[in-house]
Amino acid sequence: MKISCMKGKLMQGISNVSKAVSTKTTHPILSCIFIEAENGNIKLTANDMEIGIESYVEGTVIEEGKVAIEAKLLSDIVRKLPDSEIHMETNEDFKTTIKCEKSLFTIAGKSGEDFSSLPVVEKSKYITISQFTLREIINQTIFSISDSEYNNVMTGELFEVSNNRLRVVAIDGHRIAIRNVELKDESQDVKVIVPGKALSYISKIVNGGVDDDVNIYFADNNILFEFDRTKVVSRLVEGEFFRIDNMLNVDYQIKFTINKREFLDCLDRSSLLIKESDKKPIKLTIEDNMLYLKIDSLIGSMNEEIEIHKEGSNIIIGFNPKFLMDAIRAIDDDDITIYMNNTKSPCVIKDEEENYIYLILPMGIGSR
Amino acid sequence: MKISCMKGKLMQGISNVSKAVSTKTTHPILSCIFIEAENGNIKLTANDMEIGIESYVEGTVIEEGKVAIEAKLLSDIVRKLPDSEIHMETNEDFKTTIKCEKSLFTIAGKSGEDFSSLPVVEKSKYITISQFTLREIINQTIFSISDSEYNNVMTGELFEVSNNRLRVVAIDGHRIAIRNVELKDESQDVKVIVPGKALSYISKIVNGGVDDDVNIYFADNNILFEFDRTKVVSRLVEGEFFRIDNMLNVDYQIKFTINKREFLDCLDRSSLLIKESDKKPIKLTIEDNMLYLKIDSLIGSMNEEIEIHKEGSNIIIGFNPKFLMDAIRAIDDDDITIYMNNTKSPCVIKDEEENYIYLILPMGIGSR
Repeated sequence: MKISCMKGKLMQGISNVSKAVSTKTTHPILSCIFIEAENGNIKLTANDMEIGIESYVEGTVIEEGKVAIEAKLLSDIVRKLPDSEIHMETNEDFKTTIKCEKSLFTIAGKSGEDFSSLPVVEKSKYITISQFTLREIINQTIFSISDSEYNNVMTGELFEVSNNRLRVVAIDGHRIAIRNVELKDESQDVKVIVPGKALSYISKIVNGGVDDDVNIYFADNNILFEFDRTKVVSRLVEGEFFRIDNMLNVDYQIKFTINKREFLDCLDRSSLLIKESDKKPIKLTIEDNMLYLKIDSLIGSMNEEIEIHKEGSNIIIGFNPKFLMDAIRAIDDDDITIYMNNTKSPCVIKDEEENYIYLILPMGIGSR
Repeated sequence: MKISCMKGKLMQGISNVSKAVSTKTTHPILSCIFIEAENGNIKLTANDMEIGIESYVEGTVIEEGKVAIEAKLLSDIVRKLPDSEIHMETNEDFKTTIKCEKSLFTIAGKSGEDFSSLPVVEKSKYITISQFTLREIINQTIFSISDSEYNNVMTGELFEVSNNRLRVVAIDGHRIAIRNVELKDESQDVKVIVPGKALSYISKIVNGGVDDDVNIYFADNNILFEFDRTKVVSRLVEGEFFRIDNMLNVDYQIKFTINKREFLDCLDRSSLLIKESDKKPIKLTIEDNMLYLKIDSLIGSMNEEIEIHKEGSNIIIGFNPKFLMDAIRAIDDDDITIYMNNTKSPCVIKDEEENYIYLILPMGIGSR
């Protein structure tokens, strides 16, 4: 194999696929990037057997061939080379030279015979959304998945397409995060669970804006994200997702609007007094047009008050401040509206169009 | 105690003294910041018994008093408060309230009876340099101290004043770093060893420029750095520093000038092929007007060449690339000049005025 390409392009390709390189593995091949030079194309692939990523790199193929190289070493070398043209060449023993200006590295490569290429994903069912939107909906829901080993379904997010709308749902037993997106094109109905790990990787490598699209293809066992010159394939999570619709069709007794920034800063401060293991609730007293916050812990106490605009009755209710913060942080609006019923049922934070919906279960605050 | 001050001023004071807060201690008082409000002044002090820092905070003393508060909690609370006026008040049990806008924290404090104030340092011998220069000379030498437990003297830096010149020396057994600074004012001769830890802290809190001075006072057992409204006192390292002068008065057979950036980038790349534990040298072949670099390790090999301007004979010599990098990185010049004699004696990197001098011992490269 003999190829040449600009350092920047190669580095971009390497960082794209690196997310699917396995770092803790007894199979050395899983920690490699597989480089294929064929038909004038340079293709990089990494595959940790759960997620596979391939990315084409702009460059010149001088001699076709293949080689697998330890990903970290390749990435470190290319990163430190000058911003210039890189020449890579592999001999019959897969010894590989990487040359750039006056710098010449010689490292060992592997044939890659045992490298698993990406599975072929059937391209019949698909949707198209912007890279910006995909990144947003992932970042605005991913914190609500669970890393529970007992309930696999909670480790992924529901991707549901119906009536030309994509609904993304994450649920961890204490809270639900939902994002709804109108689709531009007509689409077939779909209901799959995508592993959180794959979504988290994708959110880091789709760097495009509102005008750059990503195609998402849904097959029986796999999902394929295709954008720019990159493909990400992930297996799907098996199992049936929770039915959540009857939790959403509820009338609320209490509704109030609050400044997002003020509420978030205040919750952030309250978290200073709680150790993760404490599970101390923050107590919200909603009275007329004022929200009083109070936290009492072994470390100390905090009291604050924030003006709100309220409709409905008064309530005293407790929450895990982290759960409120995660949801509120994900919202772009200056003011947010929160709905409640009683001290036992979840509060709901949503906008009028229901582009986002966050349900959070309250915590008992005893008689304090 | 009852005081008020702006959040920004208080936060600055807290971060200044926080460097001397002990984090791993069985004495709870050492992990506290001691606040004293007296004679209209608000003074914060932290003291881990090796280094003590005190810093005055601009503000209003409404009621005199003292309190010691756990440093991390105080710092976290103040950091997260709004950018506004902070009111602090302590009752007879040292319970302390911190109020800012609508936010009210109540936390436990301590009397601070067992808090050790800073030792009084005699102010007879001193020098004045700019904060900028102090930070520079520390950053340009501190990497050459040793963390050896066996030789205490190597854990500090020599501060030597003679003929109105300050010489700072750090030595770790394999290399020496020296910075010389002309002093503006006439000064008495001094020769002390300052602990590296204190110097590292100071370099982080002197944020002033070339026009902001720092006074350095030398006493028998302590050194005091005084700047802005802050004092840092450190004990000195006991013992006699190495005599290095006969190592410096040497004639060199070989002298060459090299572009700093090119050399540094090249050494940086070579370090990819060496594991810390390997102790592999980089082989420099200096021939006519070219420097050839070569490294061979289990991971792979690297070859590079850089144009130089040389006087004297040719040489093949090995170095720990990290030691070369540390020294070169600390130099501001675009081109650097390196002096050598033979494969056994140290190479010297210095400018003509000897503002900086770096000596680095070579490594054996065998017959490779």
